[in-house]
Amino acid sequence: MKKFVNRVEDLLAESLRGFGRAHADIVRVHDDPVHVTRATPTPAGKVALISGGGSGHEPLHAGFVGRGMLDAACPGAVFTSPTPDQKLAAARAVDSGAGVLFVVKNYEGDVMNFEMAAEMYEGANASVLVNDDVAVEDSTWTTGRRGVAGTVVVEKIAGAAAERGADLATVEALAERVVASTRSMGVALTSCTVPAAGEPTFAIGEDEMEMGVGIHGEPGRKRAKLAPADEIVGEMTAAILGDLGLGRGDPVLLFVNGLGGTPLMELYLVYDAAARILDDRGLAIARSLVGNYCTSLEMAGCSLTVTRMDDELLTLWDAPVHTAALRW
Amino acid sequence: MKKFVNRVEDLLAESLRGFGRAHADIVRVHDDPVHVTRATPTPAGKVALISGGGSGHEPLHAGFVGRGMLDAACPGAVFTSPTPDQKLAAARAVDSGAGVLFVVKNYEGDVMNFEMAAEMYEGANASVLVNDDVAVEDSTWTTGRRGVAGTVVVEKIAGAAAERGADLATVEALAERVVASTRSMGVALTSCTVPAAGEPTFAIGEDEMEMGVGIHGEPGRKRAKLAPADEIVGEMTAAILGDLGLGRGDPVLLFVNGLGGTPLMELYLVYDAAARILDDRGLAIARSLVGNYCTSLEMAGCSLTVTRMDDELLTLWDAPVHTAALRW
Repeated sequence: MKKFVNRVEDLLAESLRGFGRAHADIVRVHDDPVHVTRATPTPAGKVALISGGGSGHEPLHAGFVGRGMLDAACPGAVFTSPTPDQKLAAARAVDSGAGVLFVVKNYEGDVMNFEMAAEMYEGANASVLVNDDVAVEDSTWTTGRRGVAGTVVVEKIAGAAAERGADLATVEALAERVVASTRSMGVALTSCTVPAAGEPTFAIGEDEMEMGVGIHGEPGRKRAKLAPADEIVGEMTAAILGDLGLGRGDPVLLFVNGLGGTPLMELYLVYDAAARILDDRGLAIARSLVGNYCTSLEMAGCSLTVTRMDDELLTLWDAPVHTAALRW
Repeated sequence: MKKFVNRVEDLLAESLRGFGRAHADIVRVHDDPVHVTRATPTPAGKVALISGGGSGHEPLHAGFVGRGMLDAACPGAVFTSPTPDQKLAAARAVDSGAGVLFVVKNYEGDVMNFEMAAEMYEGANASVLVNDDVAVEDSTWTTGRRGVAGTVVVEKIAGAAAERGADLATVEALAERVVASTRSMGVALTSCTVPAAGEPTFAIGEDEMEMGVGIHGEPGRKRAKLAPADEIVGEMTAAILGDLGLGRGDPVLLFVNGLGGTPLMELYLVYDAAARILDDRGLAIARSLVGNYCTSLEMAGCSLTVTRMDDELLTLWDAPVHTAALRW
């Protein structure tokens, strides 16, 4: 295993300490239980957005804590759900009285622990479940569809609405609408290595790819021979668009997400391939995002996410955001 | 070779087309000869900053074209210098009459081709040579020291000065001052694979690292056994600080740059390790940057950059920037 690490058991704490210090103008990292909040308190009357999940997907979620997006994030160990007490501590820290929306990726551990935190939490709260991955129904750690990079879109848009003073029911409904309008699919060219395991999560041949991979290396639709980018992207967009039910002229957000080990140069080539296909379908690419936002450690691969947009979603997408990983 | 690519010979063009489209609000990609400019013309009286070099280091340089940073970038083939005519076309496109500053990383091909462009260019122009890499004197393609991630700092600070209306001599002097105040060193855990070559640039054992690696995989100071992160970072910071001659209390920018294949989680751990060492030396970390900004395709590894700051440089660092890869 080739990683920058001292003791594997200290990796998360040291990494979070570095993150907190590098972005001290934006975030605070709290220990015992571990949670990350904005550096400034939630304004009175603003709904607080909280997300979290296993680490190893950085910048998701802590990199999206800040003005216009999340109020807090709860990082678990690598690929391991954070505990209910982390989420409870985060809720108590950032709820300014307008309630809390938990944004939960659909994995059994996350769902269970967020549900426990929601039950234990004394304040008003709601939860939204993100399940944007069209690759497979049910998976290693998921009943139904997995939650993947589309989570970034949910957090951005719901975060913008909360920042503008929308109440809890409105922010929740909006987040649900983004989930319903968002589909993703990923592909892996290599495995990642979980530090505590010390070896690759799965074996894959030199000429193979895992089509529909999950962000923890869960199996996808099939193991296939590596193909030209246009062909790979064609298969992913067909799965996404086939599920989303878009009409000609519909405005969409096209989001090409790197899984960690793929160079930006290739991600832009993938974007180009996907954009040409969306053009052919008569869709209007209204907004774009390209980069490593929801990763799987050092996995080589990428995912595509398409969100059906409308004027309200576009306005909220464009609203200012000031986080470690997303800023405009 | 596992890459998202159609025909290898089309990789750069397709990637640039995707880049231009994804960021159409910020940049324009021009063909024949290939160069990237801002989407809007250089304001009258503003010095134009132009950089460029081989591709494969994305987001460097095209990702830094935009308000507050570069006016144009010239991408060569992967790890291959752009031609003089690319630079000449860029200069003619973005010079609004206040002259052009060429920012050149110290590689023989880049130096020669930028010199030719500068000689051929009819307008006022100056060049600054970035040679921040303390690892080695002379290298595979370099006489003297290589130019690496410190280039980002030069482009940000000189770009901010140009944006504020400083004249060519002032912007040039400021860029030279940043170069004189900046040192970097890198380490590789794996090689990268140049698409046209199809195989790794160098072989490296499962328990080895290349200390002082160049951003094209050039040899560094030594091949060594992989060590704990604190030890690796200790060696890099010792080399950097030993060369930079800082005094206690001096304000510095600490920049941890990923080479492409290393997860953000590890980069923040490296940041934490470096910050602790700078604390011990009594230095004041005034600003921080952590992420993949000057990469070597999918190489696993990172570099550290330290810049001695002062009030003027801090003000220019903090000035607004609006590019694909750096925005605040």
